[in-house]
Amino acid sequence: MILEINKIMEHAQEAFLSYQQVSGSKKKEFLYSIAEEIESLGDELLHTASEESHLPFARFVGERGRTCSQLRAFGDLVGEGSWVEAVIDQALPDRQPQPRPDMRKMSISLGPILVFGASNFPLAYSTAGGDTASALAAGCPVVVKGHPSHPRTSRMVSSAIQKAVGKCGLHSGVFQHVEGVSFELGKLLTQHPLTAGVGFTGSLTGGRAIFDYAQQREVPIPVFSEMGSTNPVIVMKDALNHRSPEMAKAMAASITIGVGQFCTNPGIILGIKSSVLNHFTSLLAIELSLISSYKMLNEGISENYDSALNKVLQDKGVETIYHAHAEGELMASPVLARVHADHFIQNPELHHEIFGPFSVIVVCENKSQLLQVWSMLKGQLTTTLMATDHDLEANKDMVDMARNIAGRIVFNGVPTGVEVTNATVHGGPYPAATDARFTSVGMDAIKRWVRPLCYQDCPDFLLPVELQNANPMGILRKTNGVFSRQALIP
Amino acid sequence: MILEINKIMEHAQEAFLSYQQVSGSKKKEFLYSIAEEIESLGDELLHTASEESHLPFARFVGERGRTCSQLRAFGDLVGEGSWVEAVIDQALPDRQPQPRPDMRKMSISLGPILVFGASNFPLAYSTAGGDTASALAAGCPVVVKGHPSHPRTSRMVSSAIQKAVGKCGLHSGVFQHVEGVSFELGKLLTQHPLTAGVGFTGSLTGGRAIFDYAQQREVPIPVFSEMGSTNPVIVMKDALNHRSPEMAKAMAASITIGVGQFCTNPGIILGIKSSVLNHFTSLLAIELSLISSYKMLNEGISENYDSALNKVLQDKGVETIYHAHAEGELMASPVLARVHADHFIQNPELHHEIFGPFSVIVVCENKSQLLQVWSMLKGQLTTTLMATDHDLEANKDMVDMARNIAGRIVFNGVPTGVEVTNATVHGGPYPAATDARFTSVGMDAIKRWVRPLCYQDCPDFLLPVELQNANPMGILRKTNGVFSRQALIP
Repeated sequence: MILEINKIMEHAQEAFLSYQQVSGSKKKEFLYSIAEEIESLGDELLHTASEESHLPFARFVGERGRTCSQLRAFGDLVGEGSWVEAVIDQALPDRQPQPRPDMRKMSISLGPILVFGASNFPLAYSTAGGDTASALAAGCPVVVKGHPSHPRTSRMVSSAIQKAVGKCGLHSGVFQHVEGVSFELGKLLTQHPLTAGVGFTGSLTGGRAIFDYAQQREVPIPVFSEMGSTNPVIVMKDALNHRSPEMAKAMAASITIGVGQFCTNPGIILGIKSSVLNHFTSLLAIELSLISSYKMLNEGISENYDSALNKVLQDKGVETIYHAHAEGELMASPVLARVHADHFIQNPELHHEIFGPFSVIVVCENKSQLLQVWSMLKGQLTTTLMATDHDLEANKDMVDMARNIAGRIVFNGVPTGVEVTNATVHGGPYPAATDARFTSVGMDAIKRWVRPLCYQDCPDFLLPVELQNANPMGILRKTNGVFSRQALIP
Repeated sequence: MILEINKIMEHAQEAFLSYQQVSGSKKKEFLYSIAEEIESLGDELLHTASEESHLPFARFVGERGRTCSQLRAFGDLVGEGSWVEAVIDQALPDRQPQPRPDMRKMSISLGPILVFGASNFPLAYSTAGGDTASALAAGCPVVVKGHPSHPRTSRMVSSAIQKAVGKCGLHSGVFQHVEGVSFELGKLLTQHPLTAGVGFTGSLTGGRAIFDYAQQREVPIPVFSEMGSTNPVIVMKDALNHRSPEMAKAMAASITIGVGQFCTNPGIILGIKSSVLNHFTSLLAIELSLISSYKMLNEGISENYDSALNKVLQDKGVETIYHAHAEGELMASPVLARVHADHFIQNPELHHEIFGPFSVIVVCENKSQLLQVWSMLKGQLTTTLMATDHDLEANKDMVDMARNIAGRIVFNGVPTGVEVTNATVHGGPYPAATDARFTSVGMDAIKRWVRPLCYQDCPDFLLPVELQNANPMGILRKTNGVFSRQALIP
């Protein structure tokens, strides 16, 4: 296995030497070509993904759309070119006591990136998902460790990418696909000297293991593990008074979407003891009862869900509000539970994510207890405020608290459904992710795979086009402190 | 000790809760005030620094200037405000199948930052140096572990900062100064749960130790250790033919500046065997002989220099070209050595940095051997090409190689003298630094201490000013994909 991994990583490194120099427009052509090749796999890809994941066919129509538009969005980003954050400080030959040299910098790619795709998004966050798209856009070759939960889907997507590599005349090491189920394989790939960075999406156990493997390296590399969270939702009084039915409907859909297998699944709902909270709880139970049960992704996830559920529901401090009791192999029962904050505070095991269609309402005595519970929860991808302007005006301190907890604060929406935009943050304080300074979704996901390089007094003809005086791509650059797309007079 | 550290970090965390919300203009006032307080310490500070470091008084006139202009530059940066990289993607209410929410993001501060200052820059990279200035600018409280090599200097600067804290009416936990010589202290501070990030400047041993302490944490935090390097300089044929005298003069000054105690000190010079290389070598020896010897920073550094030197010069494959033989306590002897590439390749211990006024010329048989040696060297802060345009045109592949080795490529200059600009990169592939994606010098040093936070559908009145529709600060924002300073129509 070690010999094979050496071969793969050396092939990726060889590809890196040429791929790092490929132009933005060529990379755009490549990313668009991957999208086209995935689309030309047709319904067979969607059927395969559906079969392997037990998620409905229709879901994959949407997920393919997201995957391909994400690839094209990264293509547009690098085709336009300003993403490299070019900065130019021209020389100051008359500066005293010494002249200042000409300093120019831009982002360059890190090297071969290892991607561990997610089981819950076989298209959008797996083989050709956000990590792969952003790394390829950055100019990094990618080695995907295919997820064993959807091997055929992964192989199909992989062959589509390889076709695009061929069509664009790129080095075959730009994209490689590795299969295997052993932890050892992931460890060896992570620890290989030529691996320059790792993207992981999955469980805390898995993400932390990859992170720890990387920590044993002599040469540290960036590891971005996105590991999900409980995504606490705060339901506030005035909102409960005026909007409980809509809130319950939206929340029930969010708890059960993708059979609860979203990293942004709202697993904990916090509210202050009141009749309106009780009413909301009943409405939420009713809404959940209207939603069908579905199969989970795989046996491991299904068993973990059932056992975590059993454990929680056997806790005498936890009240079962709704339990679907779905029957059959892999079937997941949506569950709504309720617990008093006093009990919740004393039982840290209730604070962990339960991956599946489960949510627990934590009933707090008052605002100060709610703040106590909220701040006890660890780092989160998201936290949500269900609140009217009246609620928010009276509780501005709660927005301050939300800032320090999560990567994204949602107001009067649901945390599931992560938009791919320039402003997206999908990450957050640990254990939501291993480095809160980056996002794995949205355009800035590319920043994980680059480093700045500075050229001091470099002759213009040797500079990358992004830093040349003429600015042939017309990109936005920070020149002598001012942002501009202009060419520069030397 | 643990109790005391708890108190310090809790105090810093308490300060964080208010300091993270302080406006850019207030932070600017604060950073300017620190600069003023340092300046008002007058010559006493410079004499103290000179006494403690054995570096000349005049050097500290310049270093104080750098320190204060760096503080003011970060003040200007946060006063202006665009550094937060505000991104706004307005809602698309008509998007199908679902409306898109309003997404806005900006950088927010991480929390209390621990700074280990450098011994070799008692002002510019120590107590109120680049790490402290950038972290305070970011909105992070700072705990400085004072460098035991200049305790009085550190105390004086520390009291200046504390005065500025008081004058600006900030929480006293915004800046704290800790003294102690034990490794245990550094370890406990690094591993404290409330420490949100670490900046270190110093040796590979020290920087790696801090990095490893951090790896034992449950919650990972960013550790930016800048650990110096050998800064390989390539001297090319046409340049040697035409400019050897100037090159030798500049290189001798660069090797000996600050008694060779710069992290960008040119420790390895690579050239191809030739009579011009021999001539350059002689000229360099002559230039070195014209430079006086000085005392080193402290006993430990002086002993390390002497013993590393002895070891290298006893190597039979290493030829001593110039050896100053300075006498007296702490005195450093500038040394120029020469070695054939065949021998250098086989002796990896010659590849390590020798901290002091030492440089070794590696004589290569031909270009391919030069490339082999160059690529064997590990990650570097800088690499320098002494080359005419004629040299460079004929050797474009060497610029490609330089890209993958260093954080900064210098053309026809010396690596010492790191400018503080927007385009500066002081960092590089490991072991130059622990995360090549960041810089510790220049304006972007601030990026180490922030993370992005996304607000989804947040009411305008609750948004930070940087993200409000009205854009009251007039900062540059990426709005719906376009950079603009305009206010936004909701």
